[in-house]
Amino acid sequence: MLTTSHGGRNNVMTMCWYTMMEFEPPLVGCVVSNRNYTFSILKTSRECVIAIPTLGMADQVVRAGNISGRKTDKFKKLGLATMPATEVKAPLIAGCYVNLECRVIDRTMVNKYNFFILEVVRAWINPSTKNPKTLHHQSYGFFMVSGKTIRFHSKKQ
Amino acid sequence: MLTTSHGGRNNVMTMCWYTMMEFEPPLVGCVVSNRNYTFSILKTSRECVIAIPTLGMADQVVRAGNISGRKTDKFKKLGLATMPATEVKAPLIAGCYVNLECRVIDRTMVNKYNFFILEVVRAWINPSTKNPKTLHHQSYGFFMVSGKTIRFHSKKQ
Repeated sequence: MLTTSHGGRNNVMTMCWYTMMEFEPPLVGCVVSNRNYTFSILKTSRECVIAIPTLGMADQVVRAGNISGRKTDKFKKLGLATMPATEVKAPLIAGCYVNLECRVIDRTMVNKYNFFILEVVRAWINPSTKNPKTLHHQSYGFFMVSGKTIRFHSKKQ
Repeated sequence: MLTTSHGGRNNVMTMCWYTMMEFEPPLVGCVVSNRNYTFSILKTSRECVIAIPTLGMADQVVRAGNISGRKTDKFKKLGLATMPATEVKAPLIAGCYVNLECRVIDRTMVNKYNFFILEVVRAWINPSTKNPKTLHHQSYGFFMVSGKTIRFHSKKQ
């Protein structure tokens, strides 16, 4: 989920197209459609929080993606508690097990591809969430739920 | 996995940083490090295949990411059978359940971020692979294996 803030009003949307782009500094690239209310806020404020929900929040995740924040306080409507971030005005989502405070560092690809390049300036994790089940959007209403983690040891080829 | 072809020689690497960018035309953005042998080939040939492996190929996936194709025929070394693509010179990987033939359509972000924007020009699926378990790289040798798929029906908010 992606939160933004503008003029003292917070908003949240569900996002599914994003990728890591660099480790150091930590960069994330993401697509926010120009049909979303968030688009112009993100473009102007240049700040956001990426909040990673778990399976238990699936209903809120889906609903946050199906309604617009243009006239609705989605946090209130969906019962999503927030916490203040430290580096950006956009809020953290209390129920999410990871929150990443981000600044837009490159808007070159925004007009053509709706693609924002973000630098993660502070990362939060909820240590009480053990082995979280995460949600991975596939298409329309379909989500893959994360399964087990496997580990491969590097070995001589 | 990402395959390329240059001067009649094919190569393959393991890739984990990519995202959908558009539905129509279907665009994918991906990071290929300039430390990889694939980088200069992709930049020059402007063609590749994204091949999506399943859990059963995990050992080949990991090994393809740990050796360089600069002096090694990785397909031969790893026992990865290929099939010719139709739109690009890069090969399909026979064992993968999805193969996407791609052309590089935008190199604006290549020098700064190693980020290539690809258009998928032909997509193949192996219909005999039912409910494939996919691999999702987390860090170092850790991979998340896809779990169950859940569906949410759109409903009035």
